[in-house]
Amino acid sequence: MEAKTKPFNGVVEIKKEGNQFNLYRNNKPYYINGIGGFNNLDIAEEYGANSFRTWNSKHAGQVLDSASHHNMTVMLGITMSKKDEDYHDDNYKKQKRLEIQELLDQYKNHSSLLVWAIGNEINLGTNSAEAWTFVEDLASIIKEHDQNHPVCTVIAGANSDVINNITKYAPTINVIGINSYAGALHKVKEDCLKTNFEGPYIITEWGPVGHWEVDKTRWNAPIEQTSLEKAESYKKGFQYIKKHDDLFLGSYVFLWGQKEERTPTWYGLFVETNEDLDLKGEICPTVDVMCYSWTGSWPKNQAPIITNFTLNSKYAIDDICVNKGETFTGKVTAADPDCDELTYTWEILKEATKLGIGGSFEPRPAQITKNIKSSQNEFSYTINEEGAYRLYVYVLDGNNHVATANIPFLVK
Amino acid sequence: MEAKTKPFNGVVEIKKEGNQFNLYRNNKPYYINGIGGFNNLDIAEEYGANSFRTWNSKHAGQVLDSASHHNMTVMLGITMSKKDEDYHDDNYKKQKRLEIQELLDQYKNHSSLLVWAIGNEINLGTNSAEAWTFVEDLASIIKEHDQNHPVCTVIAGANSDVINNITKYAPTINVIGINSYAGALHKVKEDCLKTNFEGPYIITEWGPVGHWEVDKTRWNAPIEQTSLEKAESYKKGFQYIKKHDDLFLGSYVFLWGQKEERTPTWYGLFVETNEDLDLKGEICPTVDVMCYSWTGSWPKNQAPIITNFTLNSKYAIDDICVNKGETFTGKVTAADPDCDELTYTWEILKEATKLGIGGSFEPRPAQITKNIKSSQNEFSYTINEEGAYRLYVYVLDGNNHVATANIPFLVK
Repeated sequence: MEAKTKPFNGVVEIKKEGNQFNLYRNNKPYYINGIGGFNNLDIAEEYGANSFRTWNSKHAGQVLDSASHHNMTVMLGITMSKKDEDYHDDNYKKQKRLEIQELLDQYKNHSSLLVWAIGNEINLGTNSAEAWTFVEDLASIIKEHDQNHPVCTVIAGANSDVINNITKYAPTINVIGINSYAGALHKVKEDCLKTNFEGPYIITEWGPVGHWEVDKTRWNAPIEQTSLEKAESYKKGFQYIKKHDDLFLGSYVFLWGQKEERTPTWYGLFVETNEDLDLKGEICPTVDVMCYSWTGSWPKNQAPIITNFTLNSKYAIDDICVNKGETFTGKVTAADPDCDELTYTWEILKEATKLGIGGSFEPRPAQITKNIKSSQNEFSYTINEEGAYRLYVYVLDGNNHVATANIPFLVK
Repeated sequence: MEAKTKPFNGVVEIKKEGNQFNLYRNNKPYYINGIGGFNNLDIAEEYGANSFRTWNSKHAGQVLDSASHHNMTVMLGITMSKKDEDYHDDNYKKQKRLEIQELLDQYKNHSSLLVWAIGNEINLGTNSAEAWTFVEDLASIIKEHDQNHPVCTVIAGANSDVINNITKYAPTINVIGINSYAGALHKVKEDCLKTNFEGPYIITEWGPVGHWEVDKTRWNAPIEQTSLEKAESYKKGFQYIKKHDDLFLGSYVFLWGQKEERTPTWYGLFVETNEDLDLKGEICPTVDVMCYSWTGSWPKNQAPIITNFTLNSKYAIDDICVNKGETFTGKVTAADPDCDELTYTWEILKEATKLGIGGSFEPRPAQITKNIKSSQNEFSYTINEEGAYRLYVYVLDGNNHVATANIPFLVK
């Protein structure tokens, strides 16, 4: 068959040139401008992303084809247990070996494959010799059948005990992926250089200041950055990662899509699609920063900028309390770089109480208000029931862009 | 004379009510919304400031009258030596006692006087028993003749050794002034509470991240915040100081005016008046934040917002080098909340080499370009001489507002 004689069109290599690590794809330098998730690939391609990351290998064929269609590559995730006991379980390990073998048979020659990623944040559950020895086992199987793609494992934070164990027990790993959020990103390189690992790194998840890193109200509600503050965080993050491209082969921003985690807006680079609020997955200001970082140009139309947001003239850090039955007022100040006419969508939710761990599922908190769209940058409301709530504002420019902010408050 | 029988119209007291310190002026609560410096008092009054601070008592009569004209009060500074030897010098001390006596005779009954401030950052030179004992000596003279105004001493940073010495040797001091910049402000209260001093504090100088606190280029050029980043710093600062108004009687922002310190733009809340650049002391975005903090409202017209500034598509932290004779390009992205038409003034200066210490005089660095005004947000130039330079941009809205940013770079 002709296909077999065509030269394979997806050779990926890591080279060390002087003190500089470089990634090559088909003999051309390939810096990873990556996204975490694979929604909105049209926008990703238009804004200059060249790769995306998955956390598991479900529908890997479709996912790889879809990447190809958008001129992108894939860091293909292979789910691994975070429970140490599984690494002592021969059945679990046998299944995993079979799974890897199947993935290799089917996809090792897919031109969109960039890197194999064995596990995501295994270290949140175990850092045992058994776990990393088994990662080595799988990495060896991959290398035996596929010499064309680097093998990675992704960990949470640049923890030196973990990286040293990977170095010791899984020497076949070519590159380590680090998930790091804004509160810690600026010292990842420093931390990596303290370890025994002599290879390069990829920043495999990074984003705004994490909900575990921020100030909290007295009632323990984490205070979210406004979308402007997040955009500034991402800008600083890109500057840092690029400055250290001797060690970092690139990065994957989190999250190219939307999810509920403490709030519906914390980690998403887009807002949700929500008929109640008439939201259609609009683009946040953070994505403008990505466009600039990936292409050197800002998008033609940019997202609005929220410069201030208060409730009863107070800020989130003031531990805002209102009496039940008493009217309170939210006020937002926003500007639009394109001078688009702005509209304001307001929502009040109960503070999230069903909390996930490490990004696991959380339900959207109960909604107090519905579909309050306004041309006004002020919104007043009254609540008669005690409890912890959060006031959200979405500032829309009518051109598929949105700026977001929220303030936790207590009714008593 | 009638004046003598009129009740004195400027009684200032500190009261402790529960765990809360409050300042009262003529029996009314008086929270200090203060400025450091006394230029542009019209704007200060319009934007809601109610007090200003001086660093010495020159022309104290005019200064106090001017405050009265603008419905403001004065923290009147009394210059004190930072050299320990002076506190062992009877002549120096005799002169100071005379100076204090004269000030008391002339101004203790001026209705604009708010607080006496003995010294500014004495602790940068000495923390000796002799120095603070002499501060006590002067404080006692003041209290003997004037029971209507608190007495303060202002120090650099909330250093506990210093505050404990003040508590021990100068027990007549009613309130301590702390000068603190953005890198340290968020923990001033925590630091104060570790000391033996049982009175309240005023934040007597605070501003953007200091040039000693920021990242530097390889050639040691400190990287200045953009005016948007400074505005965000001030906003966080106001939030912090207000949140802790149990301990802080208010604050004085630095610097209500303009000065050269590393750059012409680092600390000023206004830009300079400079015919070469056609600058007329325009208002920076930081001042909009003050207006909001002092009055609860944003000014009618707001300053532009710089969202990005690069040189050859690189950021300051990239240690930008250009070859001599090679054309380089600066590019700024800005928005205006009022959609005013923006113009751009560009300037290249040599990097400052004649550096002051602790805010002392520095000359404006040598100018490479002159009067480059443009409607374009890009600017290209060529330099033929090796050295360290800095590219400045001033984004003007035509309504007395300006946004600023600069990038250090090396020509080699």
